[in-house]
Amino acid sequence: MINAVLIGAGNVASHLYLAFAQSDILQFTQVYNRNLTHIDFVTSNTKVTNDLTELEEADIYFICVSDSAIGALSDKLPFTNRLTVHCSGGIAMDVLDNKNRIGVFYPLQTFIKNTDVDFKEIPICVEATNSKDEELLLELGNAISESVHKISSTQRSAIHVAAVFVNNFVNYIFQIGEEIMEENQMDFSLLHPLINKTVQSALNNSPKTLQTGPAKRGDKVTIEKHINQLQKVEQRELYKTLTNAILQQYGREKL
Amino acid sequence: MINAVLIGAGNVASHLYLAFAQSDILQFTQVYNRNLTHIDFVTSNTKVTNDLTELEEADIYFICVSDSAIGALSDKLPFTNRLTVHCSGGIAMDVLDNKNRIGVFYPLQTFIKNTDVDFKEIPICVEATNSKDEELLLELGNAISESVHKISSTQRSAIHVAAVFVNNFVNYIFQIGEEIMEENQMDFSLLHPLINKTVQSALNNSPKTLQTGPAKRGDKVTIEKHINQLQKVEQRELYKTLTNAILQQYGREKL
Repeated sequence: MINAVLIGAGNVASHLYLAFAQSDILQFTQVYNRNLTHIDFVTSNTKVTNDLTELEEADIYFICVSDSAIGALSDKLPFTNRLTVHCSGGIAMDVLDNKNRIGVFYPLQTFIKNTDVDFKEIPICVEATNSKDEELLLELGNAISESVHKISSTQRSAIHVAAVFVNNFVNYIFQIGEEIMEENQMDFSLLHPLINKTVQSALNNSPKTLQTGPAKRGDKVTIEKHINQLQKVEQRELYKTLTNAILQQYGREKL
Repeated sequence: MINAVLIGAGNVASHLYLAFAQSDILQFTQVYNRNLTHIDFVTSNTKVTNDLTELEEADIYFICVSDSAIGALSDKLPFTNRLTVHCSGGIAMDVLDNKNRIGVFYPLQTFIKNTDVDFKEIPICVEATNSKDEELLLELGNAISESVHKISSTQRSAIHVAAVFVNNFVNYIFQIGEEIMEENQMDFSLLHPLINKTVQSALNNSPKTLQTGPAKRGDKVTIEKHINQLQKVEQRELYKTLTNAILQQYGREKL
């Protein structure tokens, strides 16, 4: 059994804790958080502390704090030469203080507090400077997920940007869809089957092969009609930018 | 049994034909298309023609031709006072020549040729000038779908714009996600679980309540890092436009 310490008590921390609780490969013997009242997810056999100097010896330390706090926290760890990993998509591995052996254990998913998560389907991206540590991280990943990958800091950084597009930006576009429907006294749910179809198609094929619509066709009449019809400046700006990008991709003249 | 004539032989036409073939409320007695060889989906008990003057008498005529051809085709119909409907999201009802009774029967979905479609889940948007025709269209909609709605031309036009956002634009953003992954020697499928989660959340809740990410947080450090990291001008432009829209929505200073 691998003994681990969890540093942090946010979404990723609590979901990792629960995922490994169901495994027989790793146990969290201790959880650290600045604020002890936030550690509400641990079972009675896990110690808790809010004092870094009280961290116990373990095989691996998972640093699951906010991106901007990772580096400073790893500096403050009162030990050396132990395996310390962070769990962030947007932060390079070498932000961790190299007085310890360093690595990354990044679950590629968006976590919502108090929502059940099935780790089996979540890609785990691992990275380490030393190959034995990397092997351990792969093994730990395989214990909770069916999709474990060696991913460099540069690649992980690219994933983080791509995730902003397919998660944050797509959700924002759904917001606009909802807004347009509501402005016209209709329910967003009328668009649900179209959204489902759009996404299932993109997951079953390459989205490159699926582009349709007025911009792809270069149908300027419809494009102008749509722009005039949009009620908010921001909706029009976004419609134009996205349309121009698609017009250009398909070798058509921009607006 | 309602007798119907189908005008057109594209995606929407063929899917409508197949959907009603399974109903016992409506039969297509005749299909018209300019090019007879494209009418490859009809059964032997349906007549075919490429001559508008040969159109037979029927209770309803479905005009399923391209948006730009709908008006001219309805002008050329060699009869009057019969129910003629088009099946388009982007075209107002009154584009149809009012020498006939006019209406709209719009299935809100993106159709891919030779792909099976379950009409039960597809919203059908109907409109008609006369209430008896409207009743018939609602009845026909209910025969193939569990989601039938009275929708005005203005509303339908808004749906069409919203559909460009949630279908065409979302697919384009998936393309960018795929591109970023491939530029960094990773497979788009690594993002599939995140995409699934993003969309399922947006369908189960209002997307308004789900926005996350650096723009929502006003995290300019991450935003700048992402923009510098993107390899193509178009990717950067789109990142900036979407980020500014989100920054503004959440009352933060724009880039």
